[in-house]
Amino acid sequence: MPHIDLDKNLPGMRSLLAFCPEIGAPLGEMANILLRTSEGLSMADRELIGTYVSYLNDCFYCQQSHGAIAVCYLNGDTELVDQVIKDYTTAPISDKLKALLTIAASVQKGGKFVTTEQVEAAKALGASDRDIHDTVLIAAAFCLFNRYVDGLATQTPTDMASYPLRAQQVAEMGYGNYMVKNKQPGT
Amino acid sequence: MPHIDLDKNLPGMRSLLAFCPEIGAPLGEMANILLRTSEGLSMADRELIGTYVSYLNDCFYCQQSHGAIAVCYLNGDTELVDQVIKDYTTAPISDKLKALLTIAASVQKGGKFVTTEQVEAAKALGASDRDIHDTVLIAAAFCLFNRYVDGLATQTPTDMASYPLRAQQVAEMGYGNYMVKNKQPGT
Repeated sequence: MPHIDLDKNLPGMRSLLAFCPEIGAPLGEMANILLRTSEGLSMADRELIGTYVSYLNDCFYCQQSHGAIAVCYLNGDTELVDQVIKDYTTAPISDKLKALLTIAASVQKGGKFVTTEQVEAAKALGASDRDIHDTVLIAAAFCLFNRYVDGLATQTPTDMASYPLRAQQVAEMGYGNYMVKNKQPGT
Repeated sequence: MPHIDLDKNLPGMRSLLAFCPEIGAPLGEMANILLRTSEGLSMADRELIGTYVSYLNDCFYCQQSHGAIAVCYLNGDTELVDQVIKDYTTAPISDKLKALLTIAASVQKGGKFVTTEQVEAAKALGASDRDIHDTVLIAAAFCLFNRYVDGLATQTPTDMASYPLRAQQVAEMGYGNYMVKNKQPGT
């Protein structure tokens, strides 16, 4: 049961945005900037980083939500998302993305856990400053999202079919439009 | 030394906003919504929560920056900020704020560390649902800010006189205007 009086018909982040609508604009804009661009990292890479950090933070709702969005960008490859979560070091992804996931895992523990060696390793595998910046900020942003969702004990949908449906909407419309659309039913 | 090529003349968050200007708008708007209102929690309470979480995350830059802003709202009472960091349970603050700081400390560890008992204790001391929501989201937001600043190893000013100067600007202009102003020198 949620710690505060949230709409019982809405899950996770959506119940929070209904409770505090004014925070939807900056959170949606931030999510769009970080997750809805393919400059440098692909949108799939970005969602994989967010999904993995959500797993490390034990946030089932965000892990499922963003894992499903990653699957949309990966043409339905749910197995790859599962492999990244289980052990990204042996998953069939690029060595560069593996190095960035190592940095993301450090960020999840705390900013100071990121080492020069981790950053140099990522750079040697082709990561740009922008890739490293985006990885750190995506991981940091999910440390916010996960804590917001679980810190208020929001409801988590148990119907697993709901995640791919919602993911498809985000994959098509993005976060900003998606959030605005959900704030203004009927428009 | 920063992990990526940041402007050496800018510290902490300011160097990051210069590197990635587009993130300044949503981060500034979020900071304004969470820290620049006195509805429910005072602006001093909000900055104390952020300062304490920054301390727990060992983020010297954010702790000093936001501690100095709290001091502005507390009419120069630096001792109170120090007492909250050292041991908020014995600091001369309300029992309600102590209960909220307990919740914030749990959020810093992870969303699921917030317990029903902690929330009920805060409610019994007069905390509204909105107060609890804001406490969780402020603590979660600082888990982002702290990781962003330290995860990229940004520069930390060692001139301690710089923090109160900058804090005064934020106290007068807020975060949104402050960030926009800093993005457009001369305007």
